[in-house]
Amino acid sequence: MNTHVVIMAGGIGSRLWPLSTPEVPKQFIDVLGVGRSLIQLTADRFAPVCAPDHFWVVTGERYAALVREQLPQIPEDQILCEPEGRNTAPCIAYASWKIRKKDPEANIVVTPADALVLKTAEFADTISKALSFTQERDAIVTVGITPSRPETGYGYIHAAEALQGQLVKVSEFKEKPDLDTAISYMEDGHYFWNAGIFVWNVNTIIRELSAYAPQIAAVMDELEPALLTEKETPELRRLFPTCEKISIDYAVMEKSRYIYVIAEDLAWSDLGSWGSLQTHLKADEEGNTVVGGDVRLFDCQNCLVHTASEKTVVVEGLDGYIVAESKDRLLVCRLSEEQHIKEFSA
Amino acid sequence: MNTHVVIMAGGIGSRLWPLSTPEVPKQFIDVLGVGRSLIQLTADRFAPVCAPDHFWVVTGERYAALVREQLPQIPEDQILCEPEGRNTAPCIAYASWKIRKKDPEANIVVTPADALVLKTAEFADTISKALSFTQERDAIVTVGITPSRPETGYGYIHAAEALQGQLVKVSEFKEKPDLDTAISYMEDGHYFWNAGIFVWNVNTIIRELSAYAPQIAAVMDELEPALLTEKETPELRRLFPTCEKISIDYAVMEKSRYIYVIAEDLAWSDLGSWGSLQTHLKADEEGNTVVGGDVRLFDCQNCLVHTASEKTVVVEGLDGYIVAESKDRLLVCRLSEEQHIKEFSA
Repeated sequence: MNTHVVIMAGGIGSRLWPLSTPEVPKQFIDVLGVGRSLIQLTADRFAPVCAPDHFWVVTGERYAALVREQLPQIPEDQILCEPEGRNTAPCIAYASWKIRKKDPEANIVVTPADALVLKTAEFADTISKALSFTQERDAIVTVGITPSRPETGYGYIHAAEALQGQLVKVSEFKEKPDLDTAISYMEDGHYFWNAGIFVWNVNTIIRELSAYAPQIAAVMDELEPALLTEKETPELRRLFPTCEKISIDYAVMEKSRYIYVIAEDLAWSDLGSWGSLQTHLKADEEGNTVVGGDVRLFDCQNCLVHTASEKTVVVEGLDGYIVAESKDRLLVCRLSEEQHIKEFSA
Repeated sequence: MNTHVVIMAGGIGSRLWPLSTPEVPKQFIDVLGVGRSLIQLTADRFAPVCAPDHFWVVTGERYAALVREQLPQIPEDQILCEPEGRNTAPCIAYASWKIRKKDPEANIVVTPADALVLKTAEFADTISKALSFTQERDAIVTVGITPSRPETGYGYIHAAEALQGQLVKVSEFKEKPDLDTAISYMEDGHYFWNAGIFVWNVNTIIRELSAYAPQIAAVMDELEPALLTEKETPELRRLFPTCEKISIDYAVMEKSRYIYVIAEDLAWSDLGSWGSLQTHLKADEEGNTVVGGDVRLFDCQNCLVHTASEKTVVVEGLDGYIVAESKDRLLVCRLSEEQHIKEFSA
C-alpha cells in the first residue's frame, strides 16, 4: 500500500469573502451548513483511498492549528507548512520530495481542500482507477468533470477521446473560455472541467518537475537532506520562498507528454464563488437560498443569504443579491457582480 | 430654584431596529456617531436649565444600570424605575407625585430621552420662557416645532395664533395627518409639530391628572405615603402595573383647558425612524449616509448604512436602502418600507 493523499489547503478563498477570510479561509468553514468544513468533507471523500496515516496536508503556517483541530486523524508531522504561498508547483514539489524520502514508491493523489463532490462513490471509483493506472505506468493523470453547463469560470481539459470512466490521453489544457467557446466545448464532448486533482507516482512527478520546473526542483534537491530531520523547518523557511511562484498547470501539465484524463460526472464544484455555492444549496420557491439561523426574507427573490447561526437577519426587497455576514464583516452585493468581490474587500 | 427636569427613557425604539433593541434602546445609543448617546445629548441640552441634582429619569428597571452609567451626574435615587411600561401618563404621574413630596412648588419640564435638537441655545431660551410662564400661572405648556416639511409622521399642535417664540393658547391637538393635510398645515402657519415636551407646575399636572385620569391619580395617592421611604419599591411594584395604560396626550392634553404652546424653529427630530435619522446625517454626493467604520460603497445611491465601527462592510448596487447591523442583528430594507421594520423584527 503505497497510496498517499495530499490535500492542498493553502488558499485564502478571496472570492467567497466575507465568509472566507485570510484568517479562516473557506476550506476550514462549513460553507454548506452541513456540519463539516470543506477540508473535512475532502478528507471524508478520500477515506476509502488509504488510511489516515497516508494523508498529507500542505497549508500555510498560520493554518496548521486549524488543520490539526479539524483533521485530528492525520499525523501531525504530515501537516506540511509552507512558509509562504508560492502557488501549487512548489507546494506539490515539497510534498513530493518529502513523501519520496519516506516512501520511494509512493503513488500519490493531490487534491484541493475546498472543492465539493456529491457523487462520492463514483469519485472513489475514479480515483481508484487512476491510482491503478499510475501504479503500473509512468503517467500523470488528471480528473476531468463532465460539464453540466457551459461554465466560463473553469479551465477545461481537451481529451483525445470523448470517453468517460476511462483513462485517455490529454490533447491540451484550455484556459477559462468565453461563453460561445464553452457552449461549443459542451457540444463537442471531448472537453471536461479541470478539477485540479492529479494522480501520479512520486518518481514521475519529480522527474517532470525536474524537467519542466528545474529551478523549483533544484531548491527541493537542496532541501532534501534536511527533510524528516530537525533541520527541515529552518531550511524550508530559508529555501521555500526562493521557489518560482507558478502553478503546477503552467509548470508541468501544459508541457508534459505523459498526461491522461479520467473523466466522470461527479457532481463536482470548486465552490469558488457565491454563485457556485448557491447552486449547491436548496432554494425556496422564490429562488432564495439561506444558510444561517434566524433569517427572515420579505419580498426577496433569487438571493443568497449566508450568516452566522446566532444572527437575526431581516432582508427586504432584494432580487439577485448576496447578503453574507461573518464575524466583523458584511457583504451586500449583486450576484451578477460577484467577480468584483475580491477588489471590494481588498 | 424649583425647576426640575424629568427625562422619560422607557421606550424601546422598535422602529430603529436593529440599532435599537429591547436590550439597549436607542436613547442609550450614539445613533449619530457623535460620541454621546441620545439621553446624554438630552441631559446636555437641559444642563442650562437646572443643576444635575434636579434631574430625574424615569425608565424601565432593566435600563437603570445604563442610565447610571451614562448619566453619573444624576443622583441615583432620582432614577425612577417603572416595574413595567404603562405609557406616558402613569410615568409622568409617578414622577410628579414623587417630586411634589420632595419639592411641593416644583416647576417641571418633561422631555423624551431620544429626540434630537440642533438649535440648543434657542431651545434653552424656549424652555426658560415656558418655565417662567408656568411659575406664575396655572398652565400646561407644550413645545411646538415650526414644521420644516409636510411631515406625516408627527402629531401637530394647532395654536390659536400663528406666533413663534411666545406663549399662545392651544386650539387642539391633531393626530398624524395625511400628506395633503400636512401641506395645508404648513401653509396655514397655526400648526406646529408636537415634540412631546411639557412644562408645568407640579400642582397643575397633579390636579389635571386627578381630573382627567382619576384612576391613575388614585393609584398615585395610594402610593404616596410610601414615596421616599424604603417601602417605595415594593409598593410601586404592587401598584404601578394597575395603572391604566394611556399616553399623557390622550389622558390630559386633549382634555385640559389650560394648554399653551411655545413654538420655535429648533431643528428638532424625534429620530423615530431610519428616514428621520438619515436627514440628520451628512450624505455624500450619491446621497449615501454612513455611520460606521470601514464601510465601502460601490454603485450605491441614497442608502443609509449604519454599522458597528469595528466592522468591515461592503455594499454594492443598492439604491434607497437601509443597511444596518448591530451585534447579532442585521437589516437590509428599502427606506420606503421602513414602516414595516417593527413587524419584520418582531
